[in-house]
Amino acid sequence: MTAPDYGRAFALWRQGAAAPWQAYTRHAFVEGLKDGTLPRESFLHYLVQDYVFLVHFSRAWALAVTKSRTLDEMKAAAATVNALVNHEMQLHVTTCAEAGIPEDALFTATERPENLAYTRYVLDAGHSGDLADLLAALAPCVLGYGEIGTRLAAERAPDTPYGDWIETYGGAEYQDLCRDTGAMIDAALARRIGPEFAAAPRWPELQAQFTRATVLEVGFWDMGMTP
Amino acid sequence: MTAPDYGRAFALWRQGAAAPWQAYTRHAFVEGLKDGTLPRESFLHYLVQDYVFLVHFSRAWALAVTKSRTLDEMKAAAATVNALVNHEMQLHVTTCAEAGIPEDALFTATERPENLAYTRYVLDAGHSGDLADLLAALAPCVLGYGEIGTRLAAERAPDTPYGDWIETYGGAEYQDLCRDTGAMIDAALARRIGPEFAAAPRWPELQAQFTRATVLEVGFWDMGMTP
Amino acid sequence: MTAPDYGRAFALWRQGAAAPWQAYTRHAFVEGLKDGTLPRESFLHYLVQDYVFLVHFSRAWALAVTKSRTLDEMKAAAATVNALVNHEMQLHVTTCAEAGIPEDALFTATERPENLAYTRYVLDAGHSGDLADLLAALAPCVLGYGEIGTRLAAERAPDTPYGDWIETYGGAEYQDLCRDTGAMIDAALARRIGPEFAAAPRWPELQAQFTRATVLEVGFWDMGMTP
Amino acid sequence: MTAPDYGRAFALWRQGAAAPWQAYTRHAFVEGLKDGTLPRESFLHYLVQDYVFLVHFSRAWALAVTKSRTLDEMKAAAATVNALVNHEMQLHVTTCAEAGIPEDALFTATERPENLAYTRYVLDAGHSGDLADLLAALAPCVLGYGEIGTRLAAERAPDTPYGDWIETYGGAEYQDLCRDTGAMIDAALARRIGPEFAAAPRWPELQAQFTRATVLEVGFWDMGMTP
Repeated sequence: MTAPDYGRAFALWRQGAAAPWQAYTRHAFVEGLKDGTLPRESFLHYLVQDYVFLVHFSRAWALAVTKSRTLDEMKAAAATVNALVNHEMQLHVTTCAEAGIPEDALFTATERPENLAYTRYVLDAGHSGDLADLLAALAPCVLGYGEIGTRLAAERAPDTPYGDWIETYGGAEYQDLCRDTGAMIDAALARRIGPEFAAAPRWPELQAQFTRATVLEVGFWDMGMTP
Repeated sequence: MTAPDYGRAFALWRQGAAAPWQAYTRHAFVEGLKDGTLPRESFLHYLVQDYVFLVHFSRAWALAVTKSRTLDEMKAAAATVNALVNHEMQLHVTTCAEAGIPEDALFTATERPENLAYTRYVLDAGHSGDLADLLAALAPCVLGYGEIGTRLAAERAPDTPYGDWIETYGGAEYQDLCRDTGAMIDAALARRIGPEFAAAPRWPELQAQFTRATVLEVGFWDMGMTP
Repeated sequence: MTAPDYGRAFALWRQGAAAPWQAYTRHAFVEGLKDGTLPRESFLHYLVQDYVFLVHFSRAWALAVTKSRTLDEMKAAAATVNALVNHEMQLHVTTCAEAGIPEDALFTATERPENLAYTRYVLDAGHSGDLADLLAALAPCVLGYGEIGTRLAAERAPDTPYGDWIETYGGAEYQDLCRDTGAMIDAALARRIGPEFAAAPRWPELQAQFTRATVLEVGFWDMGMTP
Repeated sequence: MTAPDYGRAFALWRQGAAAPWQAYTRHAFVEGLKDGTLPRESFLHYLVQDYVFLVHFSRAWALAVTKSRTLDEMKAAAATVNALVNHEMQLHVTTCAEAGIPEDALFTATERPENLAYTRYVLDAGHSGDLADLLAALAPCVLGYGEIGTRLAAERAPDTPYGDWIETYGGAEYQDLCRDTGAMIDAALARRIGPEFAAAPRWPELQAQFTRATVLEVGFWDMGMTP
């Protein structure tokens, strides 16, 4: 399967992180969602951890607002914060509530180290660098879920109990978000390092941040497998 | 006139900054809005500077998202960011467009030092402290405009050309925002320093930040008078 | 063995994190340093990772300078940054050079996730909170090494090859640093939350940060065992 | 007089900010130091404000440590923090003590808005951008004082009472610091935007930050004239 078109930077970064990207997007957890073999217990464990993840991921997108240098950057980042805090987190609340897990338990759940490692790495990439560094570290999550969603929507077992999850990330709304985010990344990079991304002196570092964040996503799936 | 009820912390801070608060909320610029004597040129100059102000003020509220420790704090701050970036800034764009000032000119207008001083002070209060420090520095703007709007709505000259401005900040929607923000501040302080605000060891510092931010607001009005 | 006297906050935090503190300060890695059974390969692996750790730990202490509110806080934090960057990191360079690992290899070594998790957690505790939050997350490393050093200096096998390490952290200079840091923490907390630490509303959160950082230290030792 | 050689970026930035640079480095305050006509009262007022300035300037250099990406960057920034906090601030303390102003009064002096505007602008340039942004905003202060010191050392009235000040900034030690800082800036820019600084897409923004900081330095001298 070819990669979805989420812009130029993503295509380059994805190619530059080939092995970890494969490990992340074809992880056993993902395949378990696809064919329905993922134990329910693992999925609920993942949902709770992912809720805590979204808290800190939202904070990272809010950091992007503080590091924006154009109105378009601000608007895109602010809209994402709002979507995460007032929409995507709510989806988790609903799903978890149906499984008997109340919202308070979500916010105060003990964050697993593999979970914490990813979001704090992203936040530090932002604090220690500029918006381009932050976006390079945010990209694997946003766009990786888009790529996984697209593939699973096409390949899923008809009777997998994880159809809702697949429809969320494979659906039109999330795919639009991925394309918008990809376009925002391309514009932010063009503004800061010029149109020839891969030739810029700081490109290897941006690639390294994307790759590192991808590796941490693999750790997140590993953690998801073991409640 | 009594102060509007925007919560306990605001009442204490306002009282602790009596003279600067008076200088800010009864500034000649404000009185000129009220009776309509403020020169149009000053008002447009203010609008342009206030647009740039809102850019950085939005960044400060986004910083508040990154410094939130409860879901309620996150939701309130994220909603404010969104309201500022996608609503209040738009009001300025519309008003300025009617006066022949395009949006590009707004975002790239040269920020006056008195303008810059306030927002960068707020951002640093946040970066160097916690959410309580940030809110103490943010409060004079949000809640001061609410108090000014309330008074001017009652005292305005019927024919002041600045009725729209007065209705925006004196209106129900903005007053709701002020009460919500005041409640958020009270909750954030209670969580961090306990219910007896004024007895807390760090209260003098929070008061100093509120007072300093109020003084910088006076400088902003001064600047507004002189295009 | 009783705990070393590094101040009041440390004594309370240590007690509040009893089980993880035990797991951290009596870890198999530590015992292997003590009796000399730790494989050389593990120790060198640890040294390289610890060098990368010190890079980010120094950044966290530099963040403490930016979050200081008194001259004493600034001086203490600035001196620690300098000691770390221009002294303690040099010790690692020397030891590693003797083992054939050049300095360049240290700075660019691939950071293990368990390593990254701790320092980025500390940095985020600082960015999202105030100096007290940052210090609560920094304390387990600084003071834990002091406690371990003290105990190992007393209990070590005479012929352990890790005598230099033990002397560094059990020696007078490092113990002075621990006492100074403990005093700085007590003063910073008294200034921000009052003298009755454990009664302050935010104490549970500070405790949670200390405890979480301690757990991440356990992860660091685990990582050290497996090159 | 030709500009001192503090590296390539400085030469370009200085040229790109010609008029404000002239206004800053040839300010009446500076000329008053040179020929001795600056009132003593203004000088003491400046010293007190400059002490507060150094507090926040040190915080900005500490922020540079947190934003470093190479060991050389870390070492240079950490050494500067230490020099500022434990050396340059002490010079002010001594001079002020001789004039009867105790150190406590320095740290708690009311910061003038023109003072605050500069340091908070610098801190925000750093927080919102990367190390290059921070250095562009820091440069006018560090290197401008070096240029002023060099010129005044050559042009001073023999009997100006401000000979100590001139010797500090015109002396070999400070000039070394300027050359080291200039070299660090050049290396940091080369690493992030490539060797052809002025052709980089983000150059205009870096120039704007340098220019803006220079304008704020002019405001600082203006403030210094009026106790």
